[in-house]
Amino acid sequence: MDAAALKQTICEQLDTHYDEMVALRRHFHQHPELSFQEKKTAAYIAAYYEALGVPIRTNVGGGGVLAYIEGGLPGPVIALRADFDALPIQDEKDVPYRSTVPGVMHACGHDGHTAALLVLAKVFHKNKNGLKGKLVMIHQHAEEYSPGGAKPMIEDGCLDGVDVIFGTHLWATEPLGTVQYKTGPIMAASDRFTITINGKGGHGAQPYKTKDAVLIGSQIVSALQHIVSRRLDPTQPAVVSTGSFVAENSFNVIADKAVLIGTARSFSEDVRTLIEKEIEQVISGICAMHGAGFDYSYERGYPAVCNHSEETDFLADIARNTEGVEKVTESELQMGGEDFAYYLQHVKGTFFFTGARPENPNHAFPHHHPKFDIDEKAMLTAAKVMANAAVSYQEQGKASSAAAGV
Amino acid sequence: MDAAALKQTICEQLDTHYDEMVALRRHFHQHPELSFQEKKTAAYIAAYYEALGVPIRTNVGGGGVLAYIEGGLPGPVIALRADFDALPIQDEKDVPYRSTVPGVMHACGHDGHTAALLVLAKVFHKNKNGLKGKLVMIHQHAEEYSPGGAKPMIEDGCLDGVDVIFGTHLWATEPLGTVQYKTGPIMAASDRFTITINGKGGHGAQPYKTKDAVLIGSQIVSALQHIVSRRLDPTQPAVVSTGSFVAENSFNVIADKAVLIGTARSFSEDVRTLIEKEIEQVISGICAMHGAGFDYSYERGYPAVCNHSEETDFLADIARNTEGVEKVTESELQMGGEDFAYYLQHVKGTFFFTGARPENPNHAFPHHHPKFDIDEKAMLTAAKVMANAAVSYQEQGKASSAAAGV
Amino acid sequence: MDAAALKQTICEQLDTHYDEMVALRRHFHQHPELSFQEKKTAAYIAAYYEALGVPIRTNVGGGGVLAYIEGGLPGPVIALRADFDALPIQDEKDVPYRSTVPGVMHACGHDGHTAALLVLAKVFHKNKNGLKGKLVMIHQHAEEYSPGGAKPMIEDGCLDGVDVIFGTHLWATEPLGTVQYKTGPIMAASDRFTITINGKGGHGAQPYKTKDAVLIGSQIVSALQHIVSRRLDPTQPAVVSTGSFVAENSFNVIADKAVLIGTARSFSEDVRTLIEKEIEQVISGICAMHGAGFDYSYERGYPAVCNHSEETDFLADIARNTEGVEKVTESELQMGGEDFAYYLQHVKGTFFFTGARPENPNHAFPHHHPKFDIDEKAMLTAAKVMANAAVSYQEQGKASSAAAGV
Amino acid sequence: MDAAALKQTICEQLDTHYDEMVALRRHFHQHPELSFQEKKTAAYIAAYYEALGVPIRTNVGGGGVLAYIEGGLPGPVIALRADFDALPIQDEKDVPYRSTVPGVMHACGHDGHTAALLVLAKVFHKNKNGLKGKLVMIHQHAEEYSPGGAKPMIEDGCLDGVDVIFGTHLWATEPLGTVQYKTGPIMAASDRFTITINGKGGHGAQPYKTKDAVLIGSQIVSALQHIVSRRLDPTQPAVVSTGSFVAENSFNVIADKAVLIGTARSFSEDVRTLIEKEIEQVISGICAMHGAGFDYSYERGYPAVCNHSEETDFLADIARNTEGVEKVTESELQMGGEDFAYYLQHVKGTFFFTGARPENPNHAFPHHHPKFDIDEKAMLTAAKVMANAAVSYQEQGKASSAAAGV
Repeated sequence: MDAAALKQTICEQLDTHYDEMVALRRHFHQHPELSFQEKKTAAYIAAYYEALGVPIRTNVGGGGVLAYIEGGLPGPVIALRADFDALPIQDEKDVPYRSTVPGVMHACGHDGHTAALLVLAKVFHKNKNGLKGKLVMIHQHAEEYSPGGAKPMIEDGCLDGVDVIFGTHLWATEPLGTVQYKTGPIMAASDRFTITINGKGGHGAQPYKTKDAVLIGSQIVSALQHIVSRRLDPTQPAVVSTGSFVAENSFNVIADKAVLIGTARSFSEDVRTLIEKEIEQVISGICAMHGAGFDYSYERGYPAVCNHSEETDFLADIARNTEGVEKVTESELQMGGEDFAYYLQHVKGTFFFTGARPENPNHAFPHHHPKFDIDEKAMLTAAKVMANAAVSYQEQGKASSAAAGV
Repeated sequence: MDAAALKQTICEQLDTHYDEMVALRRHFHQHPELSFQEKKTAAYIAAYYEALGVPIRTNVGGGGVLAYIEGGLPGPVIALRADFDALPIQDEKDVPYRSTVPGVMHACGHDGHTAALLVLAKVFHKNKNGLKGKLVMIHQHAEEYSPGGAKPMIEDGCLDGVDVIFGTHLWATEPLGTVQYKTGPIMAASDRFTITINGKGGHGAQPYKTKDAVLIGSQIVSALQHIVSRRLDPTQPAVVSTGSFVAENSFNVIADKAVLIGTARSFSEDVRTLIEKEIEQVISGICAMHGAGFDYSYERGYPAVCNHSEETDFLADIARNTEGVEKVTESELQMGGEDFAYYLQHVKGTFFFTGARPENPNHAFPHHHPKFDIDEKAMLTAAKVMANAAVSYQEQGKASSAAAGV
Repeated sequence: MDAAALKQTICEQLDTHYDEMVALRRHFHQHPELSFQEKKTAAYIAAYYEALGVPIRTNVGGGGVLAYIEGGLPGPVIALRADFDALPIQDEKDVPYRSTVPGVMHACGHDGHTAALLVLAKVFHKNKNGLKGKLVMIHQHAEEYSPGGAKPMIEDGCLDGVDVIFGTHLWATEPLGTVQYKTGPIMAASDRFTITINGKGGHGAQPYKTKDAVLIGSQIVSALQHIVSRRLDPTQPAVVSTGSFVAENSFNVIADKAVLIGTARSFSEDVRTLIEKEIEQVISGICAMHGAGFDYSYERGYPAVCNHSEETDFLADIARNTEGVEKVTESELQMGGEDFAYYLQHVKGTFFFTGARPENPNHAFPHHHPKFDIDEKAMLTAAKVMANAAVSYQEQGKASSAAAGV
Repeated sequence: MDAAALKQTICEQLDTHYDEMVALRRHFHQHPELSFQEKKTAAYIAAYYEALGVPIRTNVGGGGVLAYIEGGLPGPVIALRADFDALPIQDEKDVPYRSTVPGVMHACGHDGHTAALLVLAKVFHKNKNGLKGKLVMIHQHAEEYSPGGAKPMIEDGCLDGVDVIFGTHLWATEPLGTVQYKTGPIMAASDRFTITINGKGGHGAQPYKTKDAVLIGSQIVSALQHIVSRRLDPTQPAVVSTGSFVAENSFNVIADKAVLIGTARSFSEDVRTLIEKEIEQVISGICAMHGAGFDYSYERGYPAVCNHSEETDFLADIARNTEGVEKVTESELQMGGEDFAYYLQHVKGTFFFTGARPENPNHAFPHHHPKFDIDEKAMLTAAKVMANAAVSYQEQGKASSAAAGV
């Protein structure tokens, strides 16, 4: 069977198994588990593969599952990744498949990623004799919570021998039938900073005997604005946000302490390093002005997701020629983070968005919203693009040596 | 008996009863009660007077006690006031008379005020035939907690017929044997403001979709500084302090809400009104800049304690001629508040400080400190100054008509 | 002669005339004229064409020169543009061809643009029988000073009948042999704002009687920072800078007035409009906070230079196949402005950068620097890319109807 | 003649010479001279005394005049001071005696001080046989411009042998017939600070390559507000005002430099020293935050005028018993400065205000206003209070030993 016919077959079989995909997704949706606690979900995935007779490795990097599909012919090793953790959000949807776990919810579509990859694996497995090379299905735990599952899975060997990786995110703000790709940075590095101001408390009527931590913190928050507006190249998108400011006291005291917590987003290591340094310079200058002390920590979360050029062009081409995809466009930069970034630091590949916005505008909500939902047909789109990408890539016959230059 | 001899007799009898004064004070110290909850203390005071056969009114203004001592001769009506509530502070002193109530403590000397006034009343009662006029002992509840006990006691008639009032505060930062007086403002008006910023929350990576309540609050705190530095007459002491700033969130969100709470201090109604207005102008300008909403409340606490000129000069003279008083000086302005302010809005009088710093520097702590204590001999000083003031004032024969011009 | 041969011929003839190109550029360099005052330069250009016998229009849009080269065969009308004004900068280079006009200098390479276009026109003129279509050489005055020369030249008909336009800027920060292209926005919209704060002056010792314009201005400058950091999408590069702050007074007064002047840069009309509005919101909020008045004007300069997609891809391809060009890359966004923007609002086309950095690092300075210079060989590169673009475009035979959809 | 009769005589003679006082004042008013340039005024004063036959010293401390009146009997040495310089203000009054010197004007009443003292000296001289002790008339130059004339006059011996000094300022905001006194601080220390921010200039579109001196200066001006609001005791009046902010540039650059100039006012050396230090801490913190440099100078002007207690009480008593004085009140603190401060650092004495507000409200303007004028009868009030003070002080017979404790 030639590649075109194989792709055709696989896509048709995916159509046939669409109901199973939906059922799987709804099962996961009803039984969400928080990052690093997804024991049942991992077991469910493992059981699915075991029933198929597909060899797996479990507990990879602490919680992930790998499934291996060996093609009938030699060829490159392709990894496809889906994450499977949920979020600490109360499901507020009124649907039969709503979460059964109070305060926990698949509000980011990882249930759909997993369902699509499982069914795709089943179809690949059926057609494995026609495949030229090997497939590694990466079912990753803990994407939502830094330090994430990707890093330990890589350290535990999930990319060993892999030539290329593809991953997608169902994207609920873009319509069904669209795909968004982008060479280079596509999602931001996402870091966290914590600032504790050690002032000197006292009576609200006697500020001159104190070092007013509320004022110091306030001046810091204001001054942090000039990092983005003055210190960073405006063509390099970045964000510095202070999400939390806590100095809880009686009205008639002056705070001895204030704690500020925030996030920084950037798309290059240079900018990231600069932000870390500039935040410290702001804190240090303002605190010096008041003779106050401080503690500052800057914890690097996931780096920027940085897509490889050739693989991205390849994927965009594939998408344009995939049934059900009507529009393929360059993605805007997304300020959100993703630990898919780590895979792309090790092997070539690309991460893309698959439009999944519910048709009914009353059901369309942004990611992480308590009423978040997807158009489930997007799972089919995602699976087909992945299928076509894998088969076409193998057809090109690029082997692991190609990855050498990464 | 002439006035000089009467004063001499009373002071000698106060010396004789010093041990009782100490015992009373220590009783109150061991059994402190919070503002508006001082039932047992009030009952104790009432019982003391009943044992003496002094007529009283109880439950005045919700919790105060009044005792009336009628002199043998006609003359003016003089009120002397002592407050008797305690504070929500854990007593950390290592003394036999430490508080027996967890988390409640006489950390401001009101126990001493009450003990001194009780014993003074006993001595006055003994010598009542020599008194020219009437004495009203005002035992006030709830000084520490706005709206305080003075206001309802006045509304309940505690000043009816009163010509003049004297009150003192044992002052633990000034040495024993000193008295501080001041004409005009001596203690500040003490107000409370609460600001709620109603921004628009969102993801920390997407500030442009939000109205960042942490930034808005921070800009407000910074801008509040220019009220004192720019908008108020520098010769009119005032303070605007934000004691509490709470916007508690995850690091990667942008706050939709921040709550700021603070205090304002001033010495004139004009300045007070200006501060209230200027705070609103700051909030309103900053919020308008961000298109955010806000709630603002400014709750007036006690007004400034404003001593009457003639009565203050009179008291200072009396103090200079009282046994045990070595130094009488003009007081600095105190940024703290006192509901004695209300009495002085109704009748003439003066409020003064009686030095009460423990001799041992290791026992000297500021008011409201968990290790606060007084030199108990200061109670004697306070009682003698009060005694001399009352007798001398009666000797002058000023009657209630004198209060007409207040 | 086919297109390939024609391009070859033209490029060879450009090589032959390189000395003339250098001589022309140095003539202009020695005789720079400020924007809107370039009478001699325009006359020099006109004379050059008259000597060749090429028909021209002078004083176009107030100061520009158009030259028309009619090909021997029918085809599209292509405009090529070079600007010719200089800057109010003192030439500090130590070279024989340095500016002879005190305080005026070609510090941005417009002399090179003009020399290259003149010689290219001469060569085109020689080969005009082989050209399929018409060429319009746009020699534009006043690019450096808003409102610029492009707008009035367009209004005066310089683009009448034109199908496509190409323009380049010699770019002294990129090496010789490089070309930078970019679809969509490539150079920023450049606007100017002026803020006058109308406070209330007074004595420095009595701030409470004033509305302190220095403080108000300072709070505005600080708050302007959050426009970029909070109110704009971080993926949309923008700048808001206050360049000038003037409130000149004696030390012991409080300023009644402060004047702030600045620039805003952006790449889309939406962002531009948002910046204009947000600046006003900042001023208005801060002034309201102080009860002060203000005047605010926001003057739009050149819009963003926004390259057309098809023509940009076309040009990049041409550049890759032009002799002397070694590297063709996507340009970064440039925060500077260019009135080439207006041409692209009327006809299709693209604006690109031609690397012109002097080889000797001691001679390499940024644009607008008093020691600015170019590697003159870059003129040849620019002329050849333009030549190839024009001939190839004509070969494609796209006619003016193609521009209808712009 | 006893003291009461002598005072009566002197006051009557002052009445008699009131016309001369007015004539003298108007002469000075028409011929004002700037600080340190008052040659003609000094010569006029000297000539006046020479005509009387009163011994003088001229050019004292660079420009002052001293006149000595020896009483017929032994007694203390009393100095009376009047300043005689004018201001760089254009006289805008429409009166016959308006200034004849363009841009120079007696807009602070020093002309009146001088006229009153000259006539008082004439009257004293007539009655010198009755005086017990000596009088030193201090005619001081250059009060308006730091470092002032008082300091060099003292260094040149003007206070040698002096026991006590009195001085007054005609006060155009208080009504005729009033006198304001105050023990301790009455007028502020007046200092000047200059801040130069050494940033790094650049293009307005590229803030990240610069250190924006306009932003740095703005953040400093804002942060300076918290010195008064947070770092200083609110009961210690003080002002920190930035009067001038200059960073004049083109709209599209970023400033490399900004110069801020301002004034600080205070009433104690501790507060003064603290302000000087805190300003530096603010500058240093903000500049560190931006990696910018700075120059900072804090120049101390006149110290606070600090009246001696006993002499102030004495003067207030004298004023209450002086013909023409209807109201004697405690003065508010004045944030303005006066180099009379220096005299009081060397000898005992007091400085007071003499109400001089023109009766017609249309003629009443604050000091330093272009339409400033006084009610000339205030000169008579001032002279009589001075006369009575001098005679009564001598009557007390306090000699120079009394000054030992200063």
